[in-house]
Amino acid sequence: MTGLKTMLNPKVTAVVGVSTSNPFSPGNVIFRKLAFENGLPTYPINPKGGTVEGVAVHKSITAAPDDIELVVISVPAKYVPGVLTECGEKNIKSVIVVSGGFSEVGESGASIQSEIVEVASKYEISMVGPNCIGVFVPDVLDTFFLPSERVARPRKGNVAIISQSGGWLIERLEEFAGRDVGIAAAISIGNAAQTKVTDFVEYFGRENQVDVILAYIEGFAQGEGRQFVEVCKKIVPKKPVIVLKGGESEAGHRATQSHTSSLAGDHAVTNAAFNQYGIIHALDEDEVMAYAKVFSFKPKFMQGPRVGTLTVSGGHGVIASDEASQYGLLMPLFNKEQQASMRAAMTPAYQGIASFRNPCDLTGSASDIDYERVLDKMLEFKNIDAALLLLLPYAPGISLQIGARVANVAKRHNKTVVAYVPNLEKYEVIIRGFELNGIAVGDTIEEAVQMLNGIQIRSKYLKRIGAA
Amino acid sequence: MTGLKTMLNPKVTAVVGVSTSNPFSPGNVIFRKLAFENGLPTYPINPKGGTVEGVAVHKSITAAPDDIELVVISVPAKYVPGVLTECGEKNIKSVIVVSGGFSEVGESGASIQSEIVEVASKYEISMVGPNCIGVFVPDVLDTFFLPSERVARPRKGNVAIISQSGGWLIERLEEFAGRDVGIAAAISIGNAAQTKVTDFVEYFGRENQVDVILAYIEGFAQGEGRQFVEVCKKIVPKKPVIVLKGGESEAGHRATQSHTSSLAGDHAVTNAAFNQYGIIHALDEDEVMAYAKVFSFKPKFMQGPRVGTLTVSGGHGVIASDEASQYGLLMPLFNKEQQASMRAAMTPAYQGIASFRNPCDLTGSASDIDYERVLDKMLEFKNIDAALLLLLPYAPGISLQIGARVANVAKRHNKTVVAYVPNLEKYEVIIRGFELNGIAVGDTIEEAVQMLNGIQIRSKYLKRIGAA
Repeated sequence: MTGLKTMLNPKVTAVVGVSTSNPFSPGNVIFRKLAFENGLPTYPINPKGGTVEGVAVHKSITAAPDDIELVVISVPAKYVPGVLTECGEKNIKSVIVVSGGFSEVGESGASIQSEIVEVASKYEISMVGPNCIGVFVPDVLDTFFLPSERVARPRKGNVAIISQSGGWLIERLEEFAGRDVGIAAAISIGNAAQTKVTDFVEYFGRENQVDVILAYIEGFAQGEGRQFVEVCKKIVPKKPVIVLKGGESEAGHRATQSHTSSLAGDHAVTNAAFNQYGIIHALDEDEVMAYAKVFSFKPKFMQGPRVGTLTVSGGHGVIASDEASQYGLLMPLFNKEQQASMRAAMTPAYQGIASFRNPCDLTGSASDIDYERVLDKMLEFKNIDAALLLLLPYAPGISLQIGARVANVAKRHNKTVVAYVPNLEKYEVIIRGFELNGIAVGDTIEEAVQMLNGIQIRSKYLKRIGAA
Repeated sequence: MTGLKTMLNPKVTAVVGVSTSNPFSPGNVIFRKLAFENGLPTYPINPKGGTVEGVAVHKSITAAPDDIELVVISVPAKYVPGVLTECGEKNIKSVIVVSGGFSEVGESGASIQSEIVEVASKYEISMVGPNCIGVFVPDVLDTFFLPSERVARPRKGNVAIISQSGGWLIERLEEFAGRDVGIAAAISIGNAAQTKVTDFVEYFGRENQVDVILAYIEGFAQGEGRQFVEVCKKIVPKKPVIVLKGGESEAGHRATQSHTSSLAGDHAVTNAAFNQYGIIHALDEDEVMAYAKVFSFKPKFMQGPRVGTLTVSGGHGVIASDEASQYGLLMPLFNKEQQASMRAAMTPAYQGIASFRNPCDLTGSASDIDYERVLDKMLEFKNIDAALLLLLPYAPGISLQIGARVANVAKRHNKTVVAYVPNLEKYEVIIRGFELNGIAVGDTIEEAVQMLNGIQIRSKYLKRIGAA
């Protein structure tokens, strides 16, 4: 896997397919980003020569200097086998093919695709693509051929994302940037002609700075599903692997045929295997974000499915209860003694109007200190395994400090805690107060519940295999 | 129902329970809003007299002038029956009780609640509350006792919202403001001691400026569920009624007991009746927003469940297909002739890489004009009933004009069209281009699919009862 390592951290790169006349061609966009945004020594390549952005263009990979570690190819499909052969002859081990026109357009393209796989294998090149948008590693390299002003990039972090759809990946990057979830790398795997999702899962499984692996998969070729779960089986005990499967419905499956030409292959086998091997199966984009975000916080283990809930709005407690029960999470009724101990912790004036059966509704009259004190009591109860904090900062007694204050209370206990705060700019201080102190914040009640569900699934699996 | 009419559009108001010493008491917040933000003649009332914000305080409702049309009461529960009697004696027909301390705190409160219901009935007062945050009518009045800087208010529009949870309502207002969906009124019904959700549904059913009725309901007292669906039966043929039910799970139901003390009553009956009478049953907050937003556009009817989908990202087509099939929406495979006609409409350079089986993936190379021309063809096809437009403005050929351009194409056809565009500030021009031209935009693929589902449910019902 040395090819992948170099691909994600090259010293010198080249871009084949820059244009001397069109500064907006994909090759030029990629060249400008690698050379100037990432500051990597980068050779532009075009058989016509000339200059691009003041840099001399080399006529071919063969004619370029010998220190190239990664080549990005953006030329029409028919020229790709030749360029790839030049890379092989020059002993370059990492190549990204962003060009389209391969298996996704039918038989003629499929035959060029077979050809480039053969070349890559012959020269032991790690090739990503074709028909992909490339790779992005924060602070290192960005081969996405979309101008930066079109797509936000997330900060550096511990989530690695691998996707069979470039559009899906781009959208996640926007979302991760918007929610301030950092990523270690983003890989657009395209047609996955040679390097597969599984190869990257295996690679990121070994990387210490990666704590969460997230993959969007439309399908596997024959036998690849089995290989994927076997690799996951080894990695899951160390770090969570989250998968969204596209094409699970009949219509969706047909759509994959026009997109990545993935085979149905062993869909059924992999689905069953997801459970068996503790792979977190996200069912939609909301679950993807909930699971990826919460695991990026390396949350505490859940001994069981029992959740204690604090709210300042009765309606939110009701909705959280409904949603928790859909995910098999329980909200045990607190006994009289427990209720009395929490009630006694409240400001006397509001003890009479608050309720503590679980969900505990401190009402809109509660202030920061009530929330802190009641939580401190609740986290001691032996009949809960986690806490869910519903925080509507509309309540006049709630200050912007509450996130940090409550997070510090949670630190004293060995139970996982997640929070819900509406994702509005005016509440950013609260959200950051929670998150800088280790508590993941959902932007809907449902997301916070899904976060607990993710932890629950993983905790159960680790318990079952004796790893926790 | 004259009391409700006056309540939502009073000429003169009074607030009982202003404080001369604490400018932040709920009564003072409400007084300031009515008097200064809404510019309504408003009398502050407190037995001690004095002045508030430079305005003379009257010692009682009895002592105040005779032109009061709406009274907002914010005093401890035990004083409410007396104040209410004064209102009755003065022939005031509209009262909002924001005070808490009634049935939600147990038996003693429940008995005061019975007392005020008796007073209200005796004097034929329309009373909202107690234990509510009041009513909000854009540009008219705002009795919510939360300072404006804490809660965003949506613009004036055609959606009426009624909620048994103040917290839930406040959150919807933030969300409606953020998504630019206008509202006609927002009602926090609180304990619904006298005026019920059903009364407001009936009222808004007759109001011409209301096109959509949305309700959050935790439960009905005995017999009220039946009454609710009977009222809806009359209104649904004219305008959609959307309901989110809280407390449907066992845990959620228990939580309603601590919140609004709603009875389980005829839950089962109402659930079945929702389908029978065409009430749109939203299952979570996402569906609430999807349905409310799309119906606020008064969308075209769907003859059936068949959807044609256009995308510029294959992955998005796959995900949309999966989600559509969960909602019973179909994406019929286009035949060769249909595919050829759409292909011929594309820019020649990209005809080879686009696919038209449905979803139609124009690829990231497509530009505005490709999208327009293909849509124009697709909307003519007899085997689709609606169109779903997935628009990732990341694609370099897509301009900010595309929303308005594509919406104008849709206007030429008699089929419903919804779009998906990521809800980012930089795409606001696109989103507004769609929405000012009558096409609702979802902020996730799932939301756009849910929008179509809402239209599908309503169209089916109207067909069944012969109303369409």
